[in-house]
Amino acid sequence: MDLPVSPLASPFPAIPPIDGVTLRIARAGYKDWGRCDLTYAELAEGTAVAGVFTNNICCSSEVELGREQVRQGRARALIVNAGNSNAFTGYRGREAVEQIMAQVSGRLGCPADQVFVSSTGVIGVPLPKDKARAGVEAALDAPPCGWEDAANTIGTTDTFAKGAMAQAVVDGKTVTLGAFIKGSGMIAPDMATMLGYIFTDAALEPAFLQRLLSAANLKTFSCITVDSDTSTSDTVLAFATGKAGNAPLSCFDCAGADAFAAALEDVCRQLAQLVVRDGEGAQKFITIEVSGAVSDDSARRIGLAIANSPLIKTAIAGEDANWGRVVMAVGKAGEPADRDRLSIGFGGVWAAREGLPLADYDEAPVAAHLRGRDISIEVDIGLGAGRATVWTCDLTHGYISINADYRS
Amino acid sequence: MDLPVSPLASPFPAIPPIDGVTLRIARAGYKDWGRCDLTYAELAEGTAVAGVFTNNICCSSEVELGREQVRQGRARALIVNAGNSNAFTGYRGREAVEQIMAQVSGRLGCPADQVFVSSTGVIGVPLPKDKARAGVEAALDAPPCGWEDAANTIGTTDTFAKGAMAQAVVDGKTVTLGAFIKGSGMIAPDMATMLGYIFTDAALEPAFLQRLLSAANLKTFSCITVDSDTSTSDTVLAFATGKAGNAPLSCFDCAGADAFAAALEDVCRQLAQLVVRDGEGAQKFITIEVSGAVSDDSARRIGLAIANSPLIKTAIAGEDANWGRVVMAVGKAGEPADRDRLSIGFGGVWAAREGLPLADYDEAPVAAHLRGRDISIEVDIGLGAGRATVWTCDLTHGYISINADYRS
Repeated sequence: MDLPVSPLASPFPAIPPIDGVTLRIARAGYKDWGRCDLTYAELAEGTAVAGVFTNNICCSSEVELGREQVRQGRARALIVNAGNSNAFTGYRGREAVEQIMAQVSGRLGCPADQVFVSSTGVIGVPLPKDKARAGVEAALDAPPCGWEDAANTIGTTDTFAKGAMAQAVVDGKTVTLGAFIKGSGMIAPDMATMLGYIFTDAALEPAFLQRLLSAANLKTFSCITVDSDTSTSDTVLAFATGKAGNAPLSCFDCAGADAFAAALEDVCRQLAQLVVRDGEGAQKFITIEVSGAVSDDSARRIGLAIANSPLIKTAIAGEDANWGRVVMAVGKAGEPADRDRLSIGFGGVWAAREGLPLADYDEAPVAAHLRGRDISIEVDIGLGAGRATVWTCDLTHGYISINADYRS
Repeated sequence: MDLPVSPLASPFPAIPPIDGVTLRIARAGYKDWGRCDLTYAELAEGTAVAGVFTNNICCSSEVELGREQVRQGRARALIVNAGNSNAFTGYRGREAVEQIMAQVSGRLGCPADQVFVSSTGVIGVPLPKDKARAGVEAALDAPPCGWEDAANTIGTTDTFAKGAMAQAVVDGKTVTLGAFIKGSGMIAPDMATMLGYIFTDAALEPAFLQRLLSAANLKTFSCITVDSDTSTSDTVLAFATGKAGNAPLSCFDCAGADAFAAALEDVCRQLAQLVVRDGEGAQKFITIEVSGAVSDDSARRIGLAIANSPLIKTAIAGEDANWGRVVMAVGKAGEPADRDRLSIGFGGVWAAREGLPLADYDEAPVAAHLRGRDISIEVDIGLGAGRATVWTCDLTHGYISINADYRS
């Protein structure tokens, strides 16, 4: 199906080349798309790698293998297949991944476990080995391409290419982070629930890169949801080639570690928000700010209960400041809350404070806010200092059309 | 808004009069509905009562009070207000409920805590005391009405009246259970998430009635979901007038206790399924049978993860046997599962067995099954003997229209 571009789309950012990263794309033909569907990133020797993966128990072989591979901390290559997730395909799916790892490592002369593979698309169909072999061969020999081409190639139901960039000064060197991501439906938090790749020329010890990525994940990818459905395949990998020449970062005492951590979190947040902006059928981008919870984690769970509520998402689609539904979602979250201390607002205007509707509540500015594209919901639990920000989109006829009216 | 009757509607059953129960209805005018919106059930002295209530922390005063009231075990009256849930209304909401309790108990000459009150409708508007007082007065003096009139009067966005009946022989006496329920949206499990009332002429000790109701709830109301949103107000109450004259049931050793328990569970299952059949926008009734889980409770959680998945609900709406989405939902449930032991079927036909798509999978009978109104999904986890059955409906454009296109 040919989907219109999301009304919440952001333009693809200008991302400079990153030393030690070469991108190439090819067409394996997993689907009749008539476009490239296989992405190859070649990485300099010694590149550090870290990853976060879906917590879905029925995960793909790619995720199972990737989770093992990040432990040794080094990467030479990434292959991303689009159009077939290779999930729920048993030993045949695993063989297809191992074939790709052997093929690429043979060409590069590196250990097979330094070749990372991701796949996204339909569940339950083993990745066809012949198409994969020919596609990888073509990608290995393809000319280098730019960031936006690679971002487009990993997409499936995505309606726009999603990239992010940040820079930081580390040890006197300016390091660059370039990244792209895909994801639109089957997006729920609890881990990285899409395919995202972050590349940097900074030098980091793999264990520290993993620590920074896991921390950033908790505040970014784990704080978004489109439809509460957690994918079987999805993955965020960070690659640090070290070509910027800084002394490798190994802990927060290193000069520039804080700056790099902030830049990494910035890139992760940009990527996470872009996925929401391409949520299936999304017409509005919703930011939910929860404060006053008993802990940050409790605030995040409450935020996600709000973000996953079909009744709230449809109310926002209908531009209805239905704060009663927000009360309902806070109450069902299973986290400490007290009805009589709860305050709820939209676009910075309180509708209810401390358990009661405001007598002088002025609906006009709230109604104007809800007619816009970027909506905020503020919730003060009134119990503690826990805070979280969660991002989601509205639930519209477009979501139903994409997932019910068209056949997979 | 005027909603069309659900295509899954069931006719209202013939329920005989139950000795000790008198139903009356009146118009309080909580909304501009031009129909009765206040229901009054007068119960014989000594009637035993039991209840299950929403676990939503932000529950209404009706729920808070009701939870206290059931402890003393006896009821003389039930008042149900439709059009205003009185939830999130602080002390003013509580005062309105206490006014109703005082008014009815004054007339009946009974303790105030034997008068049970429920309210359903918009959240955040205190129940207007003057309308409540006049409505209750009118109901106290109204002529008796039938079951279907009462069932219609407690409804809000319901598109048809929902009732159930069962009989059992207890201690040589035939006892009757008559019941009605309302609910269509904001329906999720974890407790009773709607207003449901069960009346019987059987005699039971209150503690045993509570035990039976709680057990039935776990297998019926806690196994349904429309939209994963847990209401702030909802309640199931069971009233046993004792007029059938059997020796009061107090434990499973009593003659007829098993028969009564079976009849009660039967009525609860009928009521629960009726709510799903009136799910907002529902076009298909979906039964999910989970077997092979490590426990019954684990099976129920997996079944609910499937039943709450927007991607599965839209796939069924689109008549698409998308078992890959079922794999995803099993994996995200957070319960023990093994991808390579999992089997999934539709309408009794396996699509995948033990982690692999079936080579000889015949899609024709499955496609025919999915074109029907009553859909079944079978999932065998392959790990143990745990079983559960969960009921839900599909997710359609109708749900979006009801909750987004129309304003509350």
